[in-house]
Amino acid sequence: MINLLFAARTKRWEIYEAPLRSALEAAGIEANLAQDIAPDQVDYIIYAPDSDLQDFTPYTRAKAVLNLWAGVEQITGNETLKIPLARMVDPGLTKGMVEWVTGHVMRYHLGMDAHIVNPDRAWQTVAPPLAQERDVVILGLGALGTACAEMLLTLGFRVTGWSRSPKNVEGVTCLHGADGLAQALSQAQILVTLLPDTAATTNIIDAAALAAMPQGAFIINPGRGPLIDDDALLTALDTGHIAHATLDVFRIEPLPQDHPYWAHPHVTVTPHIAAETRAITASEVIVENIRRGEAGLPYLNLVDRALGY
Amino acid sequence: MINLLFAARTKRWEIYEAPLRSALEAAGIEANLAQDIAPDQVDYIIYAPDSDLQDFTPYTRAKAVLNLWAGVEQITGNETLKIPLARMVDPGLTKGMVEWVTGHVMRYHLGMDAHIVNPDRAWQTVAPPLAQERDVVILGLGALGTACAEMLLTLGFRVTGWSRSPKNVEGVTCLHGADGLAQALSQAQILVTLLPDTAATTNIIDAAALAAMPQGAFIINPGRGPLIDDDALLTALDTGHIAHATLDVFRIEPLPQDHPYWAHPHVTVTPHIAAETRAITASEVIVENIRRGEAGLPYLNLVDRALGY
Repeated sequence: MINLLFAARTKRWEIYEAPLRSALEAAGIEANLAQDIAPDQVDYIIYAPDSDLQDFTPYTRAKAVLNLWAGVEQITGNETLKIPLARMVDPGLTKGMVEWVTGHVMRYHLGMDAHIVNPDRAWQTVAPPLAQERDVVILGLGALGTACAEMLLTLGFRVTGWSRSPKNVEGVTCLHGADGLAQALSQAQILVTLLPDTAATTNIIDAAALAAMPQGAFIINPGRGPLIDDDALLTALDTGHIAHATLDVFRIEPLPQDHPYWAHPHVTVTPHIAAETRAITASEVIVENIRRGEAGLPYLNLVDRALGY
Repeated sequence: MINLLFAARTKRWEIYEAPLRSALEAAGIEANLAQDIAPDQVDYIIYAPDSDLQDFTPYTRAKAVLNLWAGVEQITGNETLKIPLARMVDPGLTKGMVEWVTGHVMRYHLGMDAHIVNPDRAWQTVAPPLAQERDVVILGLGALGTACAEMLLTLGFRVTGWSRSPKNVEGVTCLHGADGLAQALSQAQILVTLLPDTAATTNIIDAAALAAMPQGAFIINPGRGPLIDDDALLTALDTGHIAHATLDVFRIEPLPQDHPYWAHPHVTVTPHIAAETRAITASEVIVENIRRGEAGLPYLNLVDRALGY
């Protein structure tokens, strides 16, 4: 029997307790999982950096700290932490992103909103085009962009991906650099922005980029708020050049109640839900690391605290 | 140069002309495609049963009639038709069905409507469950139901299929018969009805079936209107036992303007668009049959006029 301390806020305990117990049972690990265990009895610390536990000195027998999140900036500088630290690399986060992007691409593709809100009871028997007639462009071909591209290909869409440096994804038209960006935008009936937030990507979707897109295009941003020049997007939505935008990330979150996006008839706001760590898959990753620790195998996703990641 | 008569209403000509020309070009077939050709010069008749052409006698040189639709009931009894008749089996119809079903399953799965219509500007950062935590049940495992099941599996859902007689679809929990139906309904967080319209399936979704479904379930009906007992569904929607329904087919179409479905806040009506023949793919099928005719090969999807299909 090993002792697993869940060192995170009680709200997270309510979300994680059942999936952790299920994952432990599935792995055949007998454990005492609790929020309160005498420090010198703890074998592993399942950890959220915003928990009250900041001094690791009394945890004399603990073998590893298993972070619930990808971000470890708040803990890498902690001098009291002498044992291995693993960050979370959650396959559920990628799955959730693929599901959110696929859903909203299908929503625009099928023209669902006109049916969901149809006060005139209009019966327009015009079938939408097939996915094979629709161009979807993804900016960013990292792990998330590539996973989304592959699912959209499976659904039959014509998929183009753009990245700063050349990439190759089977079945996807891969473009790169400044010329590639102009070409990608020009065919983006539906645009998905999944770039990281860097100096080079800030406002990458500005007035010029929007003007380069086809009339009546749709924008889906599950990436980062600063990718989009908000004023330019609002102008393009007002003129109808951009038909509709679905935005999951913003410069300020929660999106302030008086932000024009909330009131705009052609904007859907979603509350930063596209890229979330999921308890069910994250619990499996944590339990796999406990199994590895008990078996003397190397931990997954170990943080190099000198490098900070 | 062969002469192809397009014998259908002008509305259809506008939809089919470009895809037919593209398909002919792709097949390397030089043809005169037109709505008006002297009957004794016509080689093939691309045909809609509701066209003005009902007497085939003057078409002395025509080799085949290529129907634009699957249904041939209006033409099989035509005594003037002596040449081969091919009906339409359109791969685009299946693709369109898979896209429509996938889109609306994702919509319910992600809880999109609460974001699309959100007058309170609510920012609720609760991510939806992953598809792997969601049970989707498909009633009917014919060509369409099976194709939908396979795409939903690819998206990660737990998929159960039900059919009257036993079937086997890899990865899908396949149930059958009366006991199987009760079990399938009991786990249908999202139910998709893709059964044919027969005496045995009329009102298969009645008050008892709805009561067997989980609290807060969603229903998607792209199959046939009579599968659902409309009064029972409205009652279940009023009590909230069924959270929402998206219906594409109805006993009377267009759905009458005073039908309660239009006014119900938890019903989405779509105008029979899930299963449509698509010009782009149907044109490819027609051109392939012309190619076969010219090469002396057997036609695809030939109708046995004695049998009537």
